[in-house]
Amino acid sequence: MPGNLPAHVTLVGAGVIGRGWIRVFARHGVAVTVHDPDPAQIDRTLDWLERDLAADVTAGFVSAEARTKMLGCTRGEADLARALAVADYVQESAPEKLEVKRALFADLDRLTPAEAILASSTSALDIGEIARGLAGERRCVMAHPFNPPHLLPAVEMLGAAGTDPAALTKACAILSACGQIPVRMTRYVKGFLGNRIQAAVVREALHLLESGVADAVAIDAVIRDALALRWATIGNFGANHTNADEGITQYFGRYEPSFATLMNDLDSAPPRFDPSLLRAVGLAVEAREGVTGVDALIRRRDVMLTELRQLKHRHDQG
Amino acid sequence: MPGNLPAHVTLVGAGVIGRGWIRVFARHGVAVTVHDPDPAQIDRTLDWLERDLAADVTAGFVSAEARTKMLGCTRGEADLARALAVADYVQESAPEKLEVKRALFADLDRLTPAEAILASSTSALDIGEIARGLAGERRCVMAHPFNPPHLLPAVEMLGAAGTDPAALTKACAILSACGQIPVRMTRYVKGFLGNRIQAAVVREALHLLESGVADAVAIDAVIRDALALRWATIGNFGANHTNADEGITQYFGRYEPSFATLMNDLDSAPPRFDPSLLRAVGLAVEAREGVTGVDALIRRRDVMLTELRQLKHRHDQG
Repeated sequence: MPGNLPAHVTLVGAGVIGRGWIRVFARHGVAVTVHDPDPAQIDRTLDWLERDLAADVTAGFVSAEARTKMLGCTRGEADLARALAVADYVQESAPEKLEVKRALFADLDRLTPAEAILASSTSALDIGEIARGLAGERRCVMAHPFNPPHLLPAVEMLGAAGTDPAALTKACAILSACGQIPVRMTRYVKGFLGNRIQAAVVREALHLLESGVADAVAIDAVIRDALALRWATIGNFGANHTNADEGITQYFGRYEPSFATLMNDLDSAPPRFDPSLLRAVGLAVEAREGVTGVDALIRRRDVMLTELRQLKHRHDQG
Repeated sequence: MPGNLPAHVTLVGAGVIGRGWIRVFARHGVAVTVHDPDPAQIDRTLDWLERDLAADVTAGFVSAEARTKMLGCTRGEADLARALAVADYVQESAPEKLEVKRALFADLDRLTPAEAILASSTSALDIGEIARGLAGERRCVMAHPFNPPHLLPAVEMLGAAGTDPAALTKACAILSACGQIPVRMTRYVKGFLGNRIQAAVVREALHLLESGVADAVAIDAVIRDALALRWATIGNFGANHTNADEGITQYFGRYEPSFATLMNDLDSAPPRFDPSLLRAVGLAVEAREGVTGVDALIRRRDVMLTELRQLKHRHDQG
């Protein structure tokens, strides 16, 4: 949907999430302005962009021409008013504090052209609370990405009570045009969809570890080398649908008692998050993946994610 | 570890799991004998093997020569004693009923050479219960695969109380030599590792669906197009380790209160498993993946899983 590409996107907040958004838009030739209240953070983010693109050129993921083009359409701007003056779409990725986001959205509403979409990357707050009472509430939406945004296409989408449905539809169309997969929710719940499901996995994985049923590499292997492979190709419901000859209805019809027993056996309390155990987990993960340090693990992740997106793209998935 | 390849494997039970095991062993040139108490089931399974290999030849995943070799080293045998007479390793994939498996393991113990490994694919039962009191308890192990076994390498491993640790080590070495990833547990828990984690995901996904927070395709998208991509490349603990500059200890140190709040908000009761809702989910999944029927979805899954395993293999993962 190239017709839905915005001419000018402004990113407000240049941390780990904000920097990933640069690549989402710049790879489609969209002019991207990066703002952060800390000018040094803008510089660090533009440095990261150069290094990350250079590594991708070396890996053969990005051509030298595409790299030049992406760098050419991205600029930093320390002045908020100037950063917002010509935006068609604003993606806010500030700290997760309601008062910070409310104040910032008031600025966005005041300083952008009247028809610009104002989207929040919030991973925890209710867009209804962030946008409530703004003159431009009708154009405010939640667009919560996963980390890293340019390699994980799903984006959770929700409007505030006063959001114009057309604005939400337009935000979804813009993100689709940029290769993302907008995921619409009907209402706010704590953690949205993805962080709830992730919390369920983290809770059970840490319970199994803390109770000594298996070590961290073993627990992670059933995810990395089994469950997640099915989920990454056909989703959880897709995997359920392939597990009985007549599909998901037959599957749960047959195994509902086993599932119910197992679900009732899962520990619903949070795990202990024991720091000494977690330290050992981090080292075991690095040893398993053959890397030293978090940065090297992130690069390994991103290389594999890039190839995995290419694989999925060949099969009409994003 | 080709030195650990067994000369002769016997598969007892030729259903969906048993048939996947054929390919695990036959692709390494191991002689595979397939037994099922129902001779017609043996025929259906060998027919499936031919069709599945033919499709893989067409897709370019398997050479015509490799296909011929795999078919050449696989044979059906309706007589249990004859099927077991020369086995070095037996993989049992019978129905999940304790008395069925106990009786079968008594037969396996009686009819196999004394040094053969006797492994159960059980997904629910305790190998300690299955093997208890057998003369050959020392050589009995659980080796629980994921479906399909030849495309998902992780295999959960556990011995009975009387299992010789050397037998468990040998079973792990045999499976590693065949390209699987043995995952050792220290004791029996309901659902082992993988089905517990899967139950946690299914429970939350169905709760979100049944409470109307989003539709099935949206809920599945945060898994298929975000969370599972990270998990499939670096696991859950790996993903946690990349989410803070200083790794997993810092990550959970910082977000423990948010995680605890969210975990306490998850509904711990089983979902309703509403059949009419599930029927709609199955249809939505098929429409999303561009297929009609479960068989076509399974083929799509297996094509993508084959490519995903090739991707992971290039990065030293299985």
